[in-house]
Amino acid sequence: MFYVSDRTAITAETIGHSLIAQFEGSPDYREVTIPYVDTPEKAIAVNARINAAAEADGETPLVFSTLADPQTRAGIIESQGLVLDLFHVFIEPMAEALALEPVIKRTRSHRISNLSSYEARIGAIDYSLQHDDGARIKDYDNADIIIVGVSRSGKTPTCLYLAMQFGIRAANYPITEEDMESSTLPAPVAPYPERLHGLTIDAKRLASIREERRPGSRYASVEQCRIEVRRVEALFKSFQIPYINSTNTSVEEIATRVVQTRGMERHSVL
Amino acid sequence: MFYVSDRTAITAETIGHSLIAQFEGSPDYREVTIPYVDTPEKAIAVNARINAAAEADGETPLVFSTLADPQTRAGIIESQGLVLDLFHVFIEPMAEALALEPVIKRTRSHRISNLSSYEARIGAIDYSLQHDDGARIKDYDNADIIIVGVSRSGKTPTCLYLAMQFGIRAANYPITEEDMESSTLPAPVAPYPERLHGLTIDAKRLASIREERRPGSRYASVEQCRIEVRRVEALFKSFQIPYINSTNTSVEEIATRVVQTRGMERHSVL
Repeated sequence: MFYVSDRTAITAETIGHSLIAQFEGSPDYREVTIPYVDTPEKAIAVNARINAAAEADGETPLVFSTLADPQTRAGIIESQGLVLDLFHVFIEPMAEALALEPVIKRTRSHRISNLSSYEARIGAIDYSLQHDDGARIKDYDNADIIIVGVSRSGKTPTCLYLAMQFGIRAANYPITEEDMESSTLPAPVAPYPERLHGLTIDAKRLASIREERRPGSRYASVEQCRIEVRRVEALFKSFQIPYINSTNTSVEEIATRVVQTRGMERHSVL
Repeated sequence: MFYVSDRTAITAETIGHSLIAQFEGSPDYREVTIPYVDTPEKAIAVNARINAAAEADGETPLVFSTLADPQTRAGIIESQGLVLDLFHVFIEPMAEALALEPVIKRTRSHRISNLSSYEARIGAIDYSLQHDDGARIKDYDNADIIIVGVSRSGKTPTCLYLAMQFGIRAANYPITEEDMESSTLPAPVAPYPERLHGLTIDAKRLASIREERRPGSRYASVEQCRIEVRRVEALFKSFQIPYINSTNTSVEEIATRVVQTRGMERHSVL
């Protein structure tokens, strides 16, 4: 699988991964990412690599590409690979629907096209970092969402993804044993019931994650994890906090569900 | 612009943004993201929304979709929008090249398909957080890359993106005025010259970013920023540290260039 682009190739990788996931039992494959293929000459060099791979393996390479310039695209489209190019397929019908000609500027995607939304996103990352793990609990007024859960249940990556991908100011607050024994919501988050979203996790998985941090500790024992998980789920239920189990769920999936459950607007900038 | 998916719709958003960036002077548009459209019934409801938008605006909605199930896809493909579906276009040629039938599992993308690479990514996020802003300078042995630059030049978002998107353990170390006066590399990073990558930024932009943090301070003055930027660039040059200007460059772009310059492997998991 080749990912070829005149820019970062992140879109090409994303497309390739989405598509290959639809096939089971596909043979093992190697992945080669080639960004910044922005001249016909570079494309011809890539063509040679694709053909060399085809000949070495006796298989058809799959080439996922995002090459805006038709001339550059022409450099690889005749290769021995199966070239699946996003622009090649979709630009023309879009141009017709918009009644506009594409500008074919290689420099457009992944530049900062909208400064204010880019700044909002960087601001969200800053905010989420500053409000990680219960730090600065006094400033939750500005949070779009507050992720709650026991220690090591996946709060931090979730918040960073929410900030990075969706421009959402996501704080997180760790639920302690003390919090779980109380019959009220923890004081710092109590004023914001409608902004809370819970994370839970299977106790065994939690124990193995904690074991890496503090091997052999009570904190990392399966028994302790079981108790905490049971109690935190009871707390979520009694305060009607929506929650999601992070055990087999990627941060992309968790973040998307949080946004949907809480009816928030997402501002993907990529 | 509609982004419609049976999963998170992140891929659909990415595709739509890449494509629309190829057009200049396109009319203002609104964006609607609809994730988890995973039954024909839900697709029919989306169809109605697309048609309502078409009639309200008198324009053809652009619909970027990733719907794996042909039956679900059929629910929107006859809408008044221009439906550009990734799977519709690319799955068949892939199936032929692979000599495999697609499984059409709606649950495949964005699940954790490869646990070890997912864990490596979460580990990289943890590492990058723990080594943000010169914290834990003794543990750089495990860094894949160390980003260096003056305060507020964009090191933290770059490191988090490197970790989140590419699974790279990225530390960052702030270059202080003291460091700039020295004729040697700062002691903590000196053992790793081949892992360093610099960030610089236009002085005026830096001043405006710092102004938000400490209004009216010497730290935020354009003059001070000019001095620091000039000195840090001189330092990069004298120690042959590759560097990139973050002023008009998105984190995606910076991260991709860092990876390419340092010849690192990227492991996109999305």
